[in-house]
Amino acid sequence: MLEKVLRVNALYDFYQPLLTPKQQEYLNLYYLNDFSLGEIAERNQVTRQAVYDNLKRAESALEAFEEKLGLFRKYKVRLSLISKMRDLADHLNSEESKQLDSFIDELENLD
Amino acid sequence: MLEKVLRVNALYDFYQPLLTPKQQEYLNLYYLNDFSLGEIAERNQVTRQAVYDNLKRAESALEAFEEKLGLFRKYKVRLSLISKMRDLADHLNSEESKQLDSFIDELENLD
Repeated sequence: MLEKVLRVNALYDFYQPLLTPKQQEYLNLYYLNDFSLGEIAERNQVTRQAVYDNLKRAESALEAFEEKLGLFRKYKVRLSLISKMRDLADHLNSEESKQLDSFIDELENLD
Repeated sequence: MLEKVLRVNALYDFYQPLLTPKQQEYLNLYYLNDFSLGEIAERNQVTRQAVYDNLKRAESALEAFEEKLGLFRKYKVRLSLISKMRDLADHLNSEESKQLDSFIDELENLD
């Protein structure tokens, strides 16, 4: 379950703007703010089943976006490359090291 | 017009999988294969106006995806960083230069 929560959270980081406002709201409450299905249902005056179905659809949408665009997969590869470049920067002279680190900072800030 | 064609092409590279099959087909024919509106209309047995409307909607969809995810914008920033890192690599000793270049190659291949 933890693995599932972490994955939904990660995909949500990348694809949140592509979800409907309702999908965003339910995922936010359930995965980020730890509301129960029952609490979300009560808050929205819908059935627990409706909340459950909406969450499942939102999760499927996130996985479909990831399958099509692969943003999370590419992000993980970039993370690993960035870490290798940081190691390399540590072994350069101070001027070159500073330069490379500043480029890596900019790369990191894009994600 | 050339600027428009280049932008649609670039956005299409990033967001093609999110478009409907019909949107993909029309954009492909019009922007990548230089078909006229009339030729696409004849081929699909629809009116020229229908093709035009579909193309406009597809272009709007591409701009909306870019506004939400900014993949093309980020790509351009990465391109410029990659070019600066290549310049830096040229000034390192051969072992370090080779290492940095191989990391940059992997970064480039992600886009």
